Amino acid sequence: MSLKTPYLMFLGDAADQLAAKTASGVVHWRSEICIGQLRLKGCNADLGLPEMTLEAAVNAGAKTLVVGVANRGGLISKLWIDILVRALEAGFDIASGLHSKLADVPDLHETAARHGCKLIDIRHSERLFEVGNGKKRRGKRLLPVGTDCSVGKMYTALALEREMLARGMNATFRATGQTGIFIAGEGISVDAVVADFISGATEWLTPENEPDHWDIVEGQGSLFHASYAGVSIGLIHGAQPDALVLCHEPTRSHMRGLLGQALPSISDCIAANEMAAQLTNPKSKCVGISIDTHHMASGSALEYLARLENEYGLPAVDPVLTGVEKILDNL
Amino acid sequence: MSLKTPYLMFLGDAADQLAAKTASGVVHWRSEICIGQLRLKGCNADLGLPEMTLEAAVNAGAKTLVVGVANRGGLISKLWIDILVRALEAGFDIASGLHSKLADVPDLHETAARHGCKLIDIRHSERLFEVGNGKKRRGKRLLPVGTDCSVGKMYTALALEREMLARGMNATFRATGQTGIFIAGEGISVDAVVADFISGATEWLTPENEPDHWDIVEGQGSLFHASYAGVSIGLIHGAQPDALVLCHEPTRSHMRGLLGQALPSISDCIAANEMAAQLTNPKSKCVGISIDTHHMASGSALEYLARLENEYGLPAVDPVLTGVEKILDNL
Repeated sequence: MSLKTPYLMFLGDAADQLAAKTASGVVHWRSEICIGQLRLKGCNADLGLPEMTLEAAVNAGAKTLVVGVANRGGLISKLWIDILVRALEAGFDIASGLHSKLADVPDLHETAARHGCKLIDIRHSERLFEVGNGKKRRGKRLLPVGTDCSVGKMYTALALEREMLARGMNATFRATGQTGIFIAGEGISVDAVVADFISGATEWLTPENEPDHWDIVEGQGSLFHASYAGVSIGLIHGAQPDALVLCHEPTRSHMRGLLGQALPSISDCIAANEMAAQLTNPKSKCVGISIDTHHMASGSALEYLARLENEYGLPAVDPVLTGVEKILDNL
Repeated sequence: MSLKTPYLMFLGDAADQLAAKTASGVVHWRSEICIGQLRLKGCNADLGLPEMTLEAAVNAGAKTLVVGVANRGGLISKLWIDILVRALEAGFDIASGLHSKLADVPDLHETAARHGCKLIDIRHSERLFEVGNGKKRRGKRLLPVGTDCSVGKMYTALALEREMLARGMNATFRATGQTGIFIAGEGISVDAVVADFISGATEWLTPENEPDHWDIVEGQGSLFHASYAGVSIGLIHGAQPDALVLCHEPTRSHMRGLLGQALPSISDCIAANEMAAQLTNPKSKCVGISIDTHHMASGSALEYLARLENEYGLPAVDPVLTGVEKILDNL
């Protein structure tokens, strides 16, 4: 799926800033394509963008209204329908990362059809993929993998892409999740494809390319997460990464959403991911460690990174605190 | 999904015996629920069942017409529509394992609705699952895993269930693929669920049970298959098997469908599967090796099994040649 830019960011009646996490991520990485925000009464989130009416946003060139807000259950709130209908009437496409589908709301479906606008439910891929074939493709690929979910894999990928482009390298971020897709303007929500096609969809997303081109593929889940490991291993096999970056959040007491399930050690996690990756790319190797030190005391973060470098013989960074240059230097 | 029995097996205009592989598997394992076969002109497959008209099958008590035939592309042939419509008019449910959906054929959809019959597309699960939670459930579970696809995982599971029941043990085969679902009359085609829900669907399929009850879960794919490993690891995590059985076909020169991709060694495959299984069941262990020796010279098969037993210290069987008793003795 592919989205027209620039975006008008719709926050609805978001309960708090966290409910607008997706939208915040898009603005953080692609402020240039987010020209304004539209909020309803009672909205408690703020992206720091100019407030815009639908009309003002159209005049400023906005093409897609992005529903960048999550609410309980991932539903499309009834309070939003009226303004979403008016957005379609004004010529917007609407893109949503919610679990429930825009296209299943009759008013939206009918209005979009009447005005020739698109409703893009990025969690629901309708494209049919082939099963993965495991054949080696030209071009290089890097994939962040994690000890757990939500340990900075997307952030690390985007920081690496930014730094590569700054160095004049040939690189493309490949989005595999909803926030990533809004940021890239295209991609595949790999956790939403049919199970048989996880690696095939990933092969399609990261096609043959110039020998010096790097796909920086957004990682998902963890091989050690009992809910999502299927997505993670299919993504690894399909991406056939030359380089892996291990991502970790050191203050977490258990796997996200799984009380009582401990995190794997960094060394076990590197070993398991290298083994999985070597099935489709025998040269695959972990080239660095990316830590989210946000919850650590500030003094101890740098000490911790130094200790990891010593222990694993790999550059260890926090993309926010130290940047990712050291990892690129190790490619 | 759950199917009404007994079945009338529909072979259509199957090109050869191989095209009726699914139907043959059902008859092999559950001849008592297959009361007849219905073949069109030009059908080159034969299940050895009595030929029956729709009327004769209804009178004999048949409840579901099983489309147990595969053709190129997994499509519903136009040549079949007429008789499928008449089956619905006669009161049959129709169950199909084809890729294309019965429910997408307007004539079938309308006729089924008019007569209150069900169209059951077993490859297309419409049930919504929760994501896996990894929590240990009561009851015991056994899962065959493979060095590759199509190395006898379903056959091994069914042979183990049969032997357990013969010993008076408390056991249930849990189907995860199309032939298995026809055989069990229920199950989930796990390769057809959305990627995020592979382990969750498997947890649902193998629920908490009596402490002495064994779920014998149909395995899928291989951790070493670049197309399908996502399904395999999700199934392992969701099934939380106490016991693994390693399945292998020793004459295969490459992974099925992947020219040039070698099979893993049995020892690597046991290690990787035990490691994956121990995430949700720390006591998980491989308890035996099941070999499809069908393509080996008859003298060498038993020798090969003896060599494996010696090398791995595990019982090694061919379910067809030797039966699976030795594996049960090792539980």
